[in-house]
Amino acid sequence: MRHILIIGAGRSASSLIQYLLGKAAAEQLHITIADLSLELAKRKTGGHPCATALALDIHNHEQRRLEIQKADLVISMLPAHMHIEVAQDCILYRKHLVTASYISDAMAALDAQAKEHGLIFMNEIGLDPGIDHMSAMKIIDEIREQGGKMLLFESFCGGLVAPESDNNLWNYKFTWAPRNVVLAGQGGAAKFIQEGKYKYIPYHKLFRRTEFFEVEGFGRFEGYANRDSLKYRSIYGLDDVLTMYRGTIRRVGFSRAWNMFVQLGMTDDSYVLDNSENLTYREFTNLFLPYHPTDSVEIKLRLQLGIELDDIVWDKLLELELFSSDKTIGVANATPAQCLEKILADKWTLEPHDKDMIVMYHKFGYELNGEEKQIDSKMVCIGDDQTYTAMAKTVGLPVAMAALHILNGRITQPGVRLPITKDVYEPILEELKGFGVNFFETEMPYIGYNPDRVFVHP
Amino acid sequence: MRHILIIGAGRSASSLIQYLLGKAAAEQLHITIADLSLELAKRKTGGHPCATALALDIHNHEQRRLEIQKADLVISMLPAHMHIEVAQDCILYRKHLVTASYISDAMAALDAQAKEHGLIFMNEIGLDPGIDHMSAMKIIDEIREQGGKMLLFESFCGGLVAPESDNNLWNYKFTWAPRNVVLAGQGGAAKFIQEGKYKYIPYHKLFRRTEFFEVEGFGRFEGYANRDSLKYRSIYGLDDVLTMYRGTIRRVGFSRAWNMFVQLGMTDDSYVLDNSENLTYREFTNLFLPYHPTDSVEIKLRLQLGIELDDIVWDKLLELELFSSDKTIGVANATPAQCLEKILADKWTLEPHDKDMIVMYHKFGYELNGEEKQIDSKMVCIGDDQTYTAMAKTVGLPVAMAALHILNGRITQPGVRLPITKDVYEPILEELKGFGVNFFETEMPYIGYNPDRVFVHP
Repeated sequence: MRHILIIGAGRSASSLIQYLLGKAAAEQLHITIADLSLELAKRKTGGHPCATALALDIHNHEQRRLEIQKADLVISMLPAHMHIEVAQDCILYRKHLVTASYISDAMAALDAQAKEHGLIFMNEIGLDPGIDHMSAMKIIDEIREQGGKMLLFESFCGGLVAPESDNNLWNYKFTWAPRNVVLAGQGGAAKFIQEGKYKYIPYHKLFRRTEFFEVEGFGRFEGYANRDSLKYRSIYGLDDVLTMYRGTIRRVGFSRAWNMFVQLGMTDDSYVLDNSENLTYREFTNLFLPYHPTDSVEIKLRLQLGIELDDIVWDKLLELELFSSDKTIGVANATPAQCLEKILADKWTLEPHDKDMIVMYHKFGYELNGEEKQIDSKMVCIGDDQTYTAMAKTVGLPVAMAALHILNGRITQPGVRLPITKDVYEPILEELKGFGVNFFETEMPYIGYNPDRVFVHP
Repeated sequence: MRHILIIGAGRSASSLIQYLLGKAAAEQLHITIADLSLELAKRKTGGHPCATALALDIHNHEQRRLEIQKADLVISMLPAHMHIEVAQDCILYRKHLVTASYISDAMAALDAQAKEHGLIFMNEIGLDPGIDHMSAMKIIDEIREQGGKMLLFESFCGGLVAPESDNNLWNYKFTWAPRNVVLAGQGGAAKFIQEGKYKYIPYHKLFRRTEFFEVEGFGRFEGYANRDSLKYRSIYGLDDVLTMYRGTIRRVGFSRAWNMFVQLGMTDDSYVLDNSENLTYREFTNLFLPYHPTDSVEIKLRLQLGIELDDIVWDKLLELELFSSDKTIGVANATPAQCLEKILADKWTLEPHDKDMIVMYHKFGYELNGEEKQIDSKMVCIGDDQTYTAMAKTVGLPVAMAALHILNGRITQPGVRLPITKDVYEPILEELKGFGVNFFETEMPYIGYNPDRVFVHP
């Protein structure tokens, strides 16, 4: 019997737990599901005989260590900044660890100790980061094995609402932390390379410099740049690549409409508004418009943003009731971003029957035998319901699979790791296909970063 | 003989020193001019028999204390964050202190000790802060003495180039720290009140929400909002005022053109550019524009910012040589803001014969005997040359006058103070007239904040 301790039983742990419980009998697993809420942990066990629910406060060092000591492998689904104490205990008691979070500096610093004790600390093995690493490195490795040289790598990922539940003008609902959606892109200029040239987009232009692409059967999407597209340049071995761009996927038209909030200053999270609790939506909107003794909030906003009478973005604002004098923010000491989040939550919260959708899109440009080529790789995953969402599946299943491969000795290289090597990505990508996570690859002519498809004189 | 110690002999100390040396014989003053650079201090004494030059490193505690001990009054013209150690020594050795800087929390905390020892720590007695406080409080006090109630206070100040030296399309040259000009308005939304309503402008809209006004004989100016217009609301006793707005003055058209840099992201000081030293101006500009295989940097910038063919802002960019492939930044590890500062400094540095100009504009709306009224108060000061600039005069003369009034027992109230009371502003504003710092007041009909001058139905 192998013991797996799962710390954190929130939304993104559902598919992970379901997968491991499904394998528990055949694989001789005992799974302890620990959460601050015993009730939540209990619900997630589903009464399975191989599962134990546990109330655990990870700040209770004694209890945390006691439970980690009992396990063979620990899966931490805690918020990213909480992993480190768990990781330190895993070093102390010689346990493997799996997380879906970015490797922090503190986590990276444990690499030598993990290696010394033969421990595998697998991180960034959820969706993004996770499936993006694996699906990208699979194609990049294939290109290299044929003797190809990478020229371009673009990668987009987004959590959206499934087409069958897509019933608002924004073609968007919150399928993940709303706060992160409102603050997306803030904190510095977006940085990337196009055809060997560094490019920077300031936050207030981010949603007006989008790229477009189509996924067969699902229509057109757009992507806006992530803050640091170059983070994995060296890790993927792409130091010489001409174009490297990573972005977030939305339905076409979302970014142009979202830009209105950015331009008005409604996404600002750096200061608190006076009397935010009692502001009506209309008063909130008027905070960002000049005073005028007679002009309406509507006309002032139209003028400020240059919105013509027949522009669909206007209807998007009306759908959110941004000019309502009846609805109030109701949140005390709120920043503009927190007020906006409240307004959006009224309309963008998933209904009980709604399903979510994950879209991932990679472009790989390369040179092989003197010829320039391109492969596009696309994946769409739709959620089953509001428990086994596309997000829960794509984040949780790779974590669960990696955990089992570690226990079964199929992933063996110790250290603080990313899923960028074949021993990890090959079996996991293969198994994910059975869960509706399929990448479809298309070959197409390489034109580099060249949105107008112009002919370039040599 | 009274001893004044002046710490810091930079540009803004010229008129201050000239004034005090002019009074030295009659007022029996001995003036010690201390600076990190002995050569600079010596030059500023002009060989005057009542002056001593001194090399002083204010981080040398022993020497600093020794010199402060010898003085009757200390004037600190150091950068604002360096005053506090001088102030603490002034408490220790029972010396009065005068500065032109904003009162820091640390300075404010010395109030009780200053009062206990009968010491006057006069701060914010330069131009802005300084002359703005004094000239505003003079009118506000007059209105109140007549029984009036303040309704509106708007106040603008700017350092510009004098009309006779105004020979570029921007109608602007650097007359003060260029870095502060490039970073102006950053660090949070601008906040103010108009007709009882809070208003917020995000940085990327700041230069598109300007106000306009005319100064007879000098033409039209524009103002953009300062970050916190409400800072002095309580201090001026204006808690019930309907409109309160403070701004920075530029020539009309400056802000619309400056906004191009803001929109492109060129004023960002939060990250360092790769290889900034070797970037040409053209390459720098291209960093903020999308890659295109054939389109020129010029056409991409026109499209990005929507600049029509006959728009004067285009000529303003050409004047700065923003598209030059010959000129290079030449500054290593520079932020975009530092690169922009370099580009601007090529064109906006004062020529040896150039003169600067200070403009201040206040609007006071009030109700008196049931009638609504308005007074506008305007001041323009032109520099004599590049030593006795308008900036040096308006910053330094009030400091010098306050110092003398303190020594002569005409300013007597101890504590950490601002120049907002009649004992301070009345004699100083009167004396400033003789130095070309004159406020002209005009009565005009009160329309509140009402830029379109519309009639409001009651």
